[in-house]
Amino acid sequence: MSAYQKLSEWLERAMAFQTAMVLFEWDNETLAPEEAGAYTARMQGALSAAYQEIMVSDEVKQLLEQCKEEALSEVERAIVREAEEERLQLVCIPPEEYREFQELVSASTRIWAKARREQDFESFAPTLEKLIACQKRFAGYRAKDGQKLYDVMLDTYEKGFTMEKLDGFFDLLKQELVPFLKQIKESPVQMEDGFLSGDYPEDRQRELAEYLAEYVGFDFRKGVMAVSAHPFTTNLHNHDVRITTHYSDRVDSSLFSVIHEAGHGIYEMGVPDELTQTLVGQGASMGMHESQSRFFENIIGRKEAFWVPLYGKMQELFPEQLGNVSREAFVKAINKVTPGLIRTEADELTYSLHVLVRYELEKQLIEEDLDVRELPKLWAEKYEEYLGVRPEHEAEGVLQDIHWSQGSFGYFPSYALGSAFGAQMYASMEKKLNCSQLLEDGRISVIREYLREHIHRYGKLKTSRELLMNMTGEDFNPRYYVDYLKEKYGKLYQVQA
Amino acid sequence: MSAYQKLSEWLERAMAFQTAMVLFEWDNETLAPEEAGAYTARMQGALSAAYQEIMVSDEVKQLLEQCKEEALSEVERAIVREAEEERLQLVCIPPEEYREFQELVSASTRIWAKARREQDFESFAPTLEKLIACQKRFAGYRAKDGQKLYDVMLDTYEKGFTMEKLDGFFDLLKQELVPFLKQIKESPVQMEDGFLSGDYPEDRQRELAEYLAEYVGFDFRKGVMAVSAHPFTTNLHNHDVRITTHYSDRVDSSLFSVIHEAGHGIYEMGVPDELTQTLVGQGASMGMHESQSRFFENIIGRKEAFWVPLYGKMQELFPEQLGNVSREAFVKAINKVTPGLIRTEADELTYSLHVLVRYELEKQLIEEDLDVRELPKLWAEKYEEYLGVRPEHEAEGVLQDIHWSQGSFGYFPSYALGSAFGAQMYASMEKKLNCSQLLEDGRISVIREYLREHIHRYGKLKTSRELLMNMTGEDFNPRYYVDYLKEKYGKLYQVQA
Repeated sequence: MSAYQKLSEWLERAMAFQTAMVLFEWDNETLAPEEAGAYTARMQGALSAAYQEIMVSDEVKQLLEQCKEEALSEVERAIVREAEEERLQLVCIPPEEYREFQELVSASTRIWAKARREQDFESFAPTLEKLIACQKRFAGYRAKDGQKLYDVMLDTYEKGFTMEKLDGFFDLLKQELVPFLKQIKESPVQMEDGFLSGDYPEDRQRELAEYLAEYVGFDFRKGVMAVSAHPFTTNLHNHDVRITTHYSDRVDSSLFSVIHEAGHGIYEMGVPDELTQTLVGQGASMGMHESQSRFFENIIGRKEAFWVPLYGKMQELFPEQLGNVSREAFVKAINKVTPGLIRTEADELTYSLHVLVRYELEKQLIEEDLDVRELPKLWAEKYEEYLGVRPEHEAEGVLQDIHWSQGSFGYFPSYALGSAFGAQMYASMEKKLNCSQLLEDGRISVIREYLREHIHRYGKLKTSRELLMNMTGEDFNPRYYVDYLKEKYGKLYQVQA
Repeated sequence: MSAYQKLSEWLERAMAFQTAMVLFEWDNETLAPEEAGAYTARMQGALSAAYQEIMVSDEVKQLLEQCKEEALSEVERAIVREAEEERLQLVCIPPEEYREFQELVSASTRIWAKARREQDFESFAPTLEKLIACQKRFAGYRAKDGQKLYDVMLDTYEKGFTMEKLDGFFDLLKQELVPFLKQIKESPVQMEDGFLSGDYPEDRQRELAEYLAEYVGFDFRKGVMAVSAHPFTTNLHNHDVRITTHYSDRVDSSLFSVIHEAGHGIYEMGVPDELTQTLVGQGASMGMHESQSRFFENIIGRKEAFWVPLYGKMQELFPEQLGNVSREAFVKAINKVTPGLIRTEADELTYSLHVLVRYELEKQLIEEDLDVRELPKLWAEKYEEYLGVRPEHEAEGVLQDIHWSQGSFGYFPSYALGSAFGAQMYASMEKKLNCSQLLEDGRISVIREYLREHIHRYGKLKTSRELLMNMTGEDFNPRYYVDYLKEKYGKLYQVQA
């Protein structure tokens, strides 16, 4: 048996443990009874420990060394590379410190949830300080010569995107979109969207959700849909991909969350059998994943052409609510720009400005030792400056997102990057395909197959920058995103872009 | 750290792997998309291998030895005993042979399903022969000096129940119930049950199912209910117990399957925190589990007194179907005796005669080298003799149950034993509690608590015979079962018992 084959057996077992953890999490969010959590957590802990033990074991370390001597295929080399990276991530943190961190996180998400409920940032501040200190220490362990700590964190989620690169991206957003948004707000054009709220029966919403998910290409032979408090996507492998949604009295809320999650799901379903159940058998990165979900949700899903073959179905499902609403009025409503306080409720145009706030603050927290107690004030000032709104309390401000309470710093930028990746892909795709025509004809599958061909089928074999280069012929270029937004919303709001 | 503490760490991890397998199976039966199976099976295989590796490892072997030197509590001793037994079960079968067996089973259930579909026993016979040969070989490995092979198999499912004991049990059933059933069939009393079939809307059936499960004591804070092709119960631990049901146009089918599975569920929910997630944290045995499920389903659930506080709810849910049916007529209908061909559809009286057929045939297959090709003929003759019905084809005869195709021999007797355990418990309980009055008053919780006190809270600390002795003051005595059946059905059918 070659070293690679031996390594594969270890990795297969590690993947089995990881997949079991994924299933436990899915089950926990969608089905498990309310009292199960504390008991099930013990098993998740044991599985996680068993996974880590394999990845940091001497056997795996030696096999990884030996693999370098063997003639491997491109896929095999990528798997070895991923395993090596995963090993280094795990091995450089002393087990004792890692356990402390896990305990901290398990407490901190509860403390955060309580603080949010009580609109009281002060009660979360000391925990947040500890989380930051911990993550900075871990980043220090992982840093390669001279690497900045926030760059180490960013690299975890999006390889090749340093502060230098992201400063360029976010500065462009700030320079272009902040004044553009002011113009939009002053525009005399008004969008009526009252009809999107109301008594939309849940069973009809579910029918619509299933219909739309299937329509955009989520294959229910390889996937399921369930309900959870917050929509998410997960997968056991390429033949078992799972999305959730959440129904409310705003029909567009579940509708677009379903298209969004289906976009994530389609990505995972597009990973080939050769790669699934290996360390390169998932989407390339957080940002690349968001590029797919937000592409389907916004670039495609909020286009008039998308609704040409679909709006009749909407009216059929909701005759009382939409029978007298024209398709044109519906499309305007789902593209209404409303600068708000909550990121997850943001419209397409203002979304990345929410991310901009978080990026700037994270950078200060990690690189400039910003006192966490300054956060609420800075948060409010930045929201005022970029979006023109100001939180009345911390629950709709700095306490709104779970990420920091989980110790995730450097994750937020991926959301904005994903949107920008999608716009760059769309610009390049438009040179080959007439997307609007395809959508009007109900041939969305052509667009989906194009993405599979250029993105999905590579799994984690390439980084997001390599994938972009491959598909669009150039490195990441945020100009496409800004141009796309300004052209679309300039037209909608009759504003000179 | 003591040897016991070290052992506990290994066992905790082994339990985590096993629980993950349970969750995968649950998910597979209730939710997973159709194409997931083959891929997920790889992970289940890896988890199973990891579980076995722990249980047969030298570390665990040595720790088990060392534990014998340590002062342990009763619970700890029981856990060590179970671990030792599990280890011996696994270690005595050469890994290569075990792998072959698993492959055989994975093929054989498919071959059996096809044979059943095509009503063609011949196509399954060679596989069945291999399964028997394999299980006899395995039983040989496990047999202690002079132990008969079928006794080894029986012991796996029900400790302390040998052929000698079971011959006495089944002979009594044959002598008493076969002639009694003939009397019943000749009785002029007719039970009308046509109204149990019909257009019973599924959402109402679901409402009833949830209501009944909760009513008998299934705690939805620690459990969930889902739909699957065949009803079953499973559990991750005592705070996560799961039952399924299946809706058809016979309202009593899902109704009693829900009470049955809730009975299993209540057992697992009654296991104390101290035992859950350990090797003694489950019901004592297959038979003891069936005793609880069949107790709730039949002894309690088909009693008139049970329906006194409930029948109004039934009529409310199904006014068109049951509005004009009296409670008395309903209770008669759900106790109608109809000797049939299919075990899982059998009524309370004839159920154990189906098991009798299987017990006699298994004994011949294992102990007397019965040629499997004789099975269809013998099956038909025994059904004719004991139940007065004869299969027209093998799908409603020898091919009906999945058990043999999974290599399970010695499992069937537990079904009949469970019914008999329940009757013995009921007789003893009646000396302390007035069950009918309690049921009429809607105080079923008193009965449930009595069972928890005497059975559930022990988990696997005691064997089924020990539990019976403990609760009823005597060893297993099948007379109670026969008396219970003859008294109940003698009265219903106006037959001299």
